[in-house]
Amino acid sequence: MSFNTFGHLFRVTTWGESHGPALGATVDGCPPGVPVDEAALQHWLDRRRPGQNRYTTQRREPDAVEILSGVFEGVSTGTPIQLMIRNTDQRSKDYGEIAEKFRPGHADITYWQKYGIRDYRGGGRSSARETAARVAAGGIARAALARMVPDLRITGYMVQMGALKIDRDRFDAAEIERNPFWTPDATAAAVWAEYLDDLRKSGDSVGAVIEVVASGVPAGLGAPVYGKLDTDLAAAMMSINAVKGVEIGDGMASAALTGSQNADEIAMGPNGPVYSSNHAGGILGGISTGQDVVVRFAVKPTSSILTTRRTITRGGQDTDIVTKGRHDPCVGIRAVPVAEAMMACVLLDHLLLDRGQTGGARGPIG
Amino acid sequence: MSFNTFGHLFRVTTWGESHGPALGATVDGCPPGVPVDEAALQHWLDRRRPGQNRYTTQRREPDAVEILSGVFEGVSTGTPIQLMIRNTDQRSKDYGEIAEKFRPGHADITYWQKYGIRDYRGGGRSSARETAARVAAGGIARAALARMVPDLRITGYMVQMGALKIDRDRFDAAEIERNPFWTPDATAAAVWAEYLDDLRKSGDSVGAVIEVVASGVPAGLGAPVYGKLDTDLAAAMMSINAVKGVEIGDGMASAALTGSQNADEIAMGPNGPVYSSNHAGGILGGISTGQDVVVRFAVKPTSSILTTRRTITRGGQDTDIVTKGRHDPCVGIRAVPVAEAMMACVLLDHLLLDRGQTGGARGPIG
Amino acid sequence: MSFNTFGHLFRVTTWGESHGPALGATVDGCPPGVPVDEAALQHWLDRRRPGQNRYTTQRREPDAVEILSGVFEGVSTGTPIQLMIRNTDQRSKDYGEIAEKFRPGHADITYWQKYGIRDYRGGGRSSARETAARVAAGGIARAALARMVPDLRITGYMVQMGALKIDRDRFDAAEIERNPFWTPDATAAAVWAEYLDDLRKSGDSVGAVIEVVASGVPAGLGAPVYGKLDTDLAAAMMSINAVKGVEIGDGMASAALTGSQNADEIAMGPNGPVYSSNHAGGILGGISTGQDVVVRFAVKPTSSILTTRRTITRGGQDTDIVTKGRHDPCVGIRAVPVAEAMMACVLLDHLLLDRGQTGGARGPIG
Amino acid sequence: MSFNTFGHLFRVTTWGESHGPALGATVDGCPPGVPVDEAALQHWLDRRRPGQNRYTTQRREPDAVEILSGVFEGVSTGTPIQLMIRNTDQRSKDYGEIAEKFRPGHADITYWQKYGIRDYRGGGRSSARETAARVAAGGIARAALARMVPDLRITGYMVQMGALKIDRDRFDAAEIERNPFWTPDATAAAVWAEYLDDLRKSGDSVGAVIEVVASGVPAGLGAPVYGKLDTDLAAAMMSINAVKGVEIGDGMASAALTGSQNADEIAMGPNGPVYSSNHAGGILGGISTGQDVVVRFAVKPTSSILTTRRTITRGGQDTDIVTKGRHDPCVGIRAVPVAEAMMACVLLDHLLLDRGQTGGARGPIG
Repeated sequence: MSFNTFGHLFRVTTWGESHGPALGATVDGCPPGVPVDEAALQHWLDRRRPGQNRYTTQRREPDAVEILSGVFEGVSTGTPIQLMIRNTDQRSKDYGEIAEKFRPGHADITYWQKYGIRDYRGGGRSSARETAARVAAGGIARAALARMVPDLRITGYMVQMGALKIDRDRFDAAEIERNPFWTPDATAAAVWAEYLDDLRKSGDSVGAVIEVVASGVPAGLGAPVYGKLDTDLAAAMMSINAVKGVEIGDGMASAALTGSQNADEIAMGPNGPVYSSNHAGGILGGISTGQDVVVRFAVKPTSSILTTRRTITRGGQDTDIVTKGRHDPCVGIRAVPVAEAMMACVLLDHLLLDRGQTGGARGPIG
Repeated sequence: MSFNTFGHLFRVTTWGESHGPALGATVDGCPPGVPVDEAALQHWLDRRRPGQNRYTTQRREPDAVEILSGVFEGVSTGTPIQLMIRNTDQRSKDYGEIAEKFRPGHADITYWQKYGIRDYRGGGRSSARETAARVAAGGIARAALARMVPDLRITGYMVQMGALKIDRDRFDAAEIERNPFWTPDATAAAVWAEYLDDLRKSGDSVGAVIEVVASGVPAGLGAPVYGKLDTDLAAAMMSINAVKGVEIGDGMASAALTGSQNADEIAMGPNGPVYSSNHAGGILGGISTGQDVVVRFAVKPTSSILTTRRTITRGGQDTDIVTKGRHDPCVGIRAVPVAEAMMACVLLDHLLLDRGQTGGARGPIG
Repeated sequence: MSFNTFGHLFRVTTWGESHGPALGATVDGCPPGVPVDEAALQHWLDRRRPGQNRYTTQRREPDAVEILSGVFEGVSTGTPIQLMIRNTDQRSKDYGEIAEKFRPGHADITYWQKYGIRDYRGGGRSSARETAARVAAGGIARAALARMVPDLRITGYMVQMGALKIDRDRFDAAEIERNPFWTPDATAAAVWAEYLDDLRKSGDSVGAVIEVVASGVPAGLGAPVYGKLDTDLAAAMMSINAVKGVEIGDGMASAALTGSQNADEIAMGPNGPVYSSNHAGGILGGISTGQDVVVRFAVKPTSSILTTRRTITRGGQDTDIVTKGRHDPCVGIRAVPVAEAMMACVLLDHLLLDRGQTGGARGPIG
Repeated sequence: MSFNTFGHLFRVTTWGESHGPALGATVDGCPPGVPVDEAALQHWLDRRRPGQNRYTTQRREPDAVEILSGVFEGVSTGTPIQLMIRNTDQRSKDYGEIAEKFRPGHADITYWQKYGIRDYRGGGRSSARETAARVAAGGIARAALARMVPDLRITGYMVQMGALKIDRDRFDAAEIERNPFWTPDATAAAVWAEYLDDLRKSGDSVGAVIEVVASGVPAGLGAPVYGKLDTDLAAAMMSINAVKGVEIGDGMASAALTGSQNADEIAMGPNGPVYSSNHAGGILGGISTGQDVVVRFAVKPTSSILTTRRTITRGGQDTDIVTKGRHDPCVGIRAVPVAEAMMACVLLDHLLLDRGQTGGARGPIG
């Protein structure tokens, strides 16, 4: 990952600001012959799109993606695919306050300090709108994966809102698409709805934990020791706005385990190795085992809140600020489709890397 | 990060296996004129070196580093610095069992599946011995940082062993160097010593949580949005053997906070902005704020234990295995100097990147 | 350079095909605070634009560039700058013939063989239209260079058309902008005009040699040994369509010199070292000397000609082809602004790289 | 290419100075399972080794390569291969003069200006000794190519010494190994021998032109538009010490051709397309055609000569210098095995890149 590009062979460069004319992604290294169309990409963008329910920002934009290059007669040509999304809801408003004051918890102050200039309109480049470009690029990655590894599935969902965790015994995959929180626990969804309504009314916000699982991942993906699959997944998730922690498999809880508890024992199954458990999250030594790849990450609460906070102006004066405007009380909700997209990009990239170096051959077992 | 190289401008490529003739690091992009000598690097390596107390593996090697290039008359020339560490304690032994069986929790099975060949002697490339090369490279980074940002300090320490956490109220930085666990809590050190003795006797192992703090980091480091400082730190830490989770600032606990709790309010101090708290871990929008940069990560328990575990052979037969030999009951202990080294490498790399793009100028406040 | 990106810190990714909706460049790593506007970029694009005289293709397009991101209130913000150029002259025509037949000398057959699909409309991605994006990106690089090194000048011109070379004794820099061939030799321009008219009428084409000189380049740019300034310049020029050879300084003619002839002797001048000659083209050991940086390259004749040539169809049948349509009899003419743009991008990139690693400090002489 | 690394997936990082303890290459990304041993690498190094005849420097070193990692039981493991060559002939001598004076035509002055420090012993990092590491790495690439594309052959030879060119009608491939100049023209070899003896006696030197041909290269290698096969070959050759020009196919002479002369017409042969000629040097649009890949480059005369040249001291005083010591009168001779090595590295890298992106599938013809 380098500045605004991530990936090694499947490389995505995103561009654009919250309130500029457009934003998008330049996707390089896609295999040729992959069916790609705007409608399929739109499907994934619509999941991330704000304004769909009362728990996400009321900014209303179609987030319609245009394919400007790299696709011919419905399939990828192997050349760069340019994906552009016009910004349509650029409300004319007075930016005077946030132009002069640094919002606590936002990148306002650090962009200013680093660059000596910042596009303060809606956060500029540091806005979560950048993630729309990731979702579009992830749609390309999904289409390529669908051809190369048809059984691969990527599923993201919320497992914690504020201090409220789901009950894993109530896990129902079918439930994920049914509630506005992408959570597999219907009971949690009901509790969270009430909790979030209260928060929203009080002008406050809250954090969340998201989990993304990829099943059907072939064994052998990951390039030790600095291009490990978990290394790239950690980087991919940490690069998402507001993410403060990333876990693979048991994650931080691994610390409390003993070696005998943590061992994922191996037995021989009809189609190769099977494991008694998956504490490792599907990755050993940076390389996929063939088990589910499990990633989890925490999103901090939205920093734009109606509570007055102390801050300073660009001129160095102490002051305070209330961040009005359209904001998500739990920005973690919309991180679900973004994280799925990042997972897709990382897995495709590693499939290509592995095919490049090893030809995709595998050491036989049995 | 790409295969065996990490970093953008300050680039470290490590090489070598546990039981080959040597291992090392090729360090490219070091600024010229940095005082570098083997004794200074050895200081850092000695901290990581095994066999120093009863809690780390009894493999005894001097881990003596040789500088083969890139240093002339005691200072770096700006050309690649080759650091080599000979492997001296390559006990002749029978590798028959681990050559044929895959140790659960180890990379044995994934290396075999990916490459169709593996150097099974001591884990080969996946051995934690690779981290000696990181520590040596980190010594170069520290020397460069000492010239460029003299006030910068990097301190790593253990904050949790198994389920036992330190008490932050007993935090005493001076204590870190006094106990074998690099922990700032003397009471915890005593408790852990007893706990680990029991574990070691029972042939089991346990995980840990390490925290690394860099103070004196200038504001403005980090290249959004895919070369964010936290993105690169997450990748750097996750690339260390056995790490399963990485946190910045409040990390996973951020999820449970509300926006009003999480805001690090800003005031104007005599030398620039000061913050009421540091939930963000010194990074906003991927760019350093000037506060302490705080990273935390979990190390899983050592997979080599004396408890019998079920596994399979390369031929696909079910069997079981006990991993004898010299192993750390808590491999997290030796991760402390490794993590400090990775922090140093990432910070230097971002100092150079930032100087390249912006010239190091800063937007003035006040 | 990697797939569709070139540069290390100043990174340009181009995208788009000849007859798609648009093409452009994603420019990442530009220093912040550089004045950038569409009119200034348009100035450079207009020089490359076809249809300006009878010696370039009659395709008429405004090649109007739009800045979609990375610029705020007239200056660069340090974030990616997206430059888009709409394709407006996409004549509806029958592509049947070139869809089925491979044009000799074109990339038709190799794109097909590599990707199994090709956008045959106007050459698709392999069209020289891609170079419009380079010129736009080069305009950004020039603006940044103008701030960082105000005395730096980049001048490209044609020194040979077909077998007809200019007379260096008639070199007049002012002449370059006065003739359609960007040549400093007015007499050559007149001869070439007649020659090219004849070629055009006969439906044939011819090659050319272009020279690009950068004066005012600071000493110290270039990162030995694989990021040498001449290495990157060679790659930059060779990546331009139809280029078959690249020379630095005396280039291929160096082979015929003796060491005593080739030595550029050094003396001390009032402002540092001065050289008796510049056989080296301003680069020693991959690093700039402060003299003029001199690059020269050969462009092969346009492959699209009216002479019938033998070829095959995608189905493997022998056939022949005449490439009708709008084509430049000497595509080298339009390579001049493209090469200037590549020179600008490489020099800026190396300025940033050098500033990153060394801080821009210089070993003093005298 | 970046600083001291070249290649995308097959990545070679070289390190070491002329008179340090050792030099070498860190080779990352080699496919697993490739037979690698020191004897085979030594074969290639012995071809480059100095002191073999009276036309190359009399520095006598065995240039013995040691493999320190990445090879197990005789085959590559897919992990980094460290190749080390000890410097044994580090004559103790007085470096006083070259420590203080800048040798014209050498990198002395530019290294000093860039870094403010230079290892002046034998040129330090800018010495042609660095190319020994390339030859060793090239030996790895050849071994991998031998497995992946058994029919691929790489042959380098000298086609011009000073102003004296070979006669292509006397081209005899078998002759290349029989004379000290690696030339296929026995008559030229005799003439050059006499010419070079005279030059050597007079303390002068001369340039040369080398050609490298790869036959059996599959169609489809090369990643347009900035990772073109010819772009990477141009960079690879230009990165070799003293190279001042690079040509693909007809190279600079392409400029003098008309389009009808330059067209390589295509016909259908029994095993796919066949071409009437190879002006293009086996590359169209940056992608290999399956024809011979032909690269040519000029090496300037050795700058170390016995003729007195004017120069300056580090203190800025005018002076003069005679470069005594052991030097090649035509350094181009030893560039032949180096260029073959670079060709091998580039071709392997592009085979892996292509396999990564496309899976190695090919659009069918016929």
